[in-house]
Amino acid sequence: MIVTATTFSQEEKAVKAIFDWALTDTTAYHNLRLLCKNHKGRITGTPEANKAVDFVAELMQQMQLDRVEKQPVTVPRWVRGEAEKAFIISGQNEKTEVPVSALGMSIGTGEKGLIAQVIEVQNFKEIETLGTKNIAGKIVFFNRPMNPTLINTFAAYGGAGDQRSQGAAQAARFGAVGVVVRSLTTASDNFPHTGVMRYNDTIPKIPAVAISTKGADLLSTTLKNNPETQFSFRTTCYQLPDSVSYNVIGEIKGSEFPDQIITVGGHLDAWETGEGAHDDGAGCMQSLDVLRIFRELRIKPKRTIRAVAFMDEEVAQRGGKEYARQAELKKETHYFALEADRGAYMPKGFGISAPDERLEKMLALQKYFEPYGIDDFVKGGGGVDIGSLAKFGTPLSSFIPEMQRYFDVHHSGYDTFEQVHLREFQLGSAAIASFIYLIDKEDL
Amino acid sequence: MIVTATTFSQEEKAVKAIFDWALTDTTAYHNLRLLCKNHKGRITGTPEANKAVDFVAELMQQMQLDRVEKQPVTVPRWVRGEAEKAFIISGQNEKTEVPVSALGMSIGTGEKGLIAQVIEVQNFKEIETLGTKNIAGKIVFFNRPMNPTLINTFAAYGGAGDQRSQGAAQAARFGAVGVVVRSLTTASDNFPHTGVMRYNDTIPKIPAVAISTKGADLLSTTLKNNPETQFSFRTTCYQLPDSVSYNVIGEIKGSEFPDQIITVGGHLDAWETGEGAHDDGAGCMQSLDVLRIFRELRIKPKRTIRAVAFMDEEVAQRGGKEYARQAELKKETHYFALEADRGAYMPKGFGISAPDERLEKMLALQKYFEPYGIDDFVKGGGGVDIGSLAKFGTPLSSFIPEMQRYFDVHHSGYDTFEQVHLREFQLGSAAIASFIYLIDKEDL
Repeated sequence: MIVTATTFSQEEKAVKAIFDWALTDTTAYHNLRLLCKNHKGRITGTPEANKAVDFVAELMQQMQLDRVEKQPVTVPRWVRGEAEKAFIISGQNEKTEVPVSALGMSIGTGEKGLIAQVIEVQNFKEIETLGTKNIAGKIVFFNRPMNPTLINTFAAYGGAGDQRSQGAAQAARFGAVGVVVRSLTTASDNFPHTGVMRYNDTIPKIPAVAISTKGADLLSTTLKNNPETQFSFRTTCYQLPDSVSYNVIGEIKGSEFPDQIITVGGHLDAWETGEGAHDDGAGCMQSLDVLRIFRELRIKPKRTIRAVAFMDEEVAQRGGKEYARQAELKKETHYFALEADRGAYMPKGFGISAPDERLEKMLALQKYFEPYGIDDFVKGGGGVDIGSLAKFGTPLSSFIPEMQRYFDVHHSGYDTFEQVHLREFQLGSAAIASFIYLIDKEDL
Repeated sequence: MIVTATTFSQEEKAVKAIFDWALTDTTAYHNLRLLCKNHKGRITGTPEANKAVDFVAELMQQMQLDRVEKQPVTVPRWVRGEAEKAFIISGQNEKTEVPVSALGMSIGTGEKGLIAQVIEVQNFKEIETLGTKNIAGKIVFFNRPMNPTLINTFAAYGGAGDQRSQGAAQAARFGAVGVVVRSLTTASDNFPHTGVMRYNDTIPKIPAVAISTKGADLLSTTLKNNPETQFSFRTTCYQLPDSVSYNVIGEIKGSEFPDQIITVGGHLDAWETGEGAHDDGAGCMQSLDVLRIFRELRIKPKRTIRAVAFMDEEVAQRGGKEYARQAELKKETHYFALEADRGAYMPKGFGISAPDERLEKMLALQKYFEPYGIDDFVKGGGGVDIGSLAKFGTPLSSFIPEMQRYFDVHHSGYDTFEQVHLREFQLGSAAIASFIYLIDKEDL
């Protein structure tokens, strides 16, 4: 059989052009490098975050978009302080340093640090059972690993996440003086993986750190040999008053329905432990790349396409909330939204939440992606930053890349530009741009 | 809906048990590390290769298999010699060193090395057009890149491969004195990627090297600025007489049809430029892991399952041929064969060549793998080492992992243990073991 180009539909040809372009262009990858290397430490509220805002706004200006906006957002400001120190102390001369990282929003230990006996637990029920008599005055060590047998590593993350987010509040109920949480990663490594935690206003605040998985294994073994083992750590983190930062918005106006907005975004803020490459510099740069690819290939969308670099996903999620609040104030029509915040690994597909009829049509777009090895179009999508648009009935989607390596880097010092693979990143840009193109083109 | 374990079939439960086991066990990964770190340089015919043979035979002995065999194979012996040196010389004081690697089976340049003007070409047609008057006395520089827009990187590799395999013979027809071939990789890097080449007995032999892609880009740019640019390189490679090496075979005897053999294998020989981790230490260790998983989970196969670490895939493919020759001599019945030689990245599926009826049933096994994100069961499979079994009518299969990163490491110094990801490797072992289990269990 002779297959000629004319047997392909206009849509198929456009998708091919998008993939071909993305796979031969390194602009977005280069911009990701600049973001990672020049704007490390860009957690919400920091000067670094606001410099990253300006960097992204400048990139958008250079792309000759129809509109670029820095949308102000009032954000919390938590300061990590000096490099954390921690030791396992199992005897008079038995002191081993282990890598820890303060959890985001944790209070510090004070200048002198904290030292106490350690009690290892797997979950909150165990604390309840142990009760105040066993826990008061001690450091609680949460050591439940992410379940390695789950293929969906995000499910494994979710299954272990309460230790980090609520461990301090739960342990403090029974008089604990601090908590050490096993890093939420599937890797056995020496990186502590940080992330946000929350206190409960009615319970005393106690300091909390993540310990590397190798450190956690060592602490656990040491405790088995010597239940009197002590743990000491010192953190100097604290909170400053709220400050102003920005969502960065760039858009190409729609040619037919300029009032209907399609949002594609990632978040610009990132934990200061790494460079925020996979989480989520890549998502921001891939979102910008949608607009760049449309410009380069002279694709004129019917609807307004907005790339958004959201602020404050990691700490208080205020960027996404402000974006939706402004949308409501301005009576904007949000036709569709996509979030890219699961790393820039090999694209697998898209998760979609939409009313049944629209959902079916969107899931059917899979046929355009199968030639590119992308075939996981599944029900259920969204993201922290676009989630607040749900109240408008906007269909929400998540870009889904391969997920086995994501938690190796997530929230740790290993989340660097070098961990982002050029072709995988390019294929992600192409997949997202193609998906947005088809949603708009086919009026889905 | 309450889903209880009893709603799963015996096969589904066995597959789940295999994946759960593989994802929580690091034995095979540890063994891969030992192979890579202790047995680097194990190209066919070398003492290193024969030490690797003993290492694998020893691993098999420890696994309490029913039979372990070192099957002798007469193999060629090519010696790389001293570290290669190469320079771009664009003027009296303009000399830049670039990374090159002799192609396997190439002759050396002699002690003094080679220096000549360079002519850049993209393909053999161009040499033909240029003819002897433009080529005689020069070094031909083949610079056609792998096509980056092909999602199937193996197709891109195939599309550029003739430069490496036949470039020297083609260029020598027109009087070239040497060839430099752009490395067959999708990456822009400083690693030369070697591989085998072949001479034509009726045409003079000239030395051939691979140049890193960054080196190739530099050479190309330099030639554009100064067409008189010279290239010099020195290689001291040579051939020794054939020697004896081995395929290493381990098997679990079948409980019902011990005379029906299912082979699963990879190749043990590897280019000395790297550690042969993805190519193909991983395939060997994953093949051995099938037997280990069967033993650990007390799976008693109906047929005899053989893991084979083949010798000499890279140079003359004599291990696979000898395996098939012995099978014929011994009148063995080969029921099925699978080759794992495409790296140990995230498993995507299996390629299968079989008569229509058996093929359909094998492709339908996909349903067991979908819960693990493995869903590319496609027609067309095989491999260099198992290919000779085709004459017996044996269905042949290839393990297919994700392929975007494979040519980054392939045949280069970057193919190290550290590039193999634990979970991806474990998932590969589980996928292969499950596939073999199902083929046997369901009598496909």
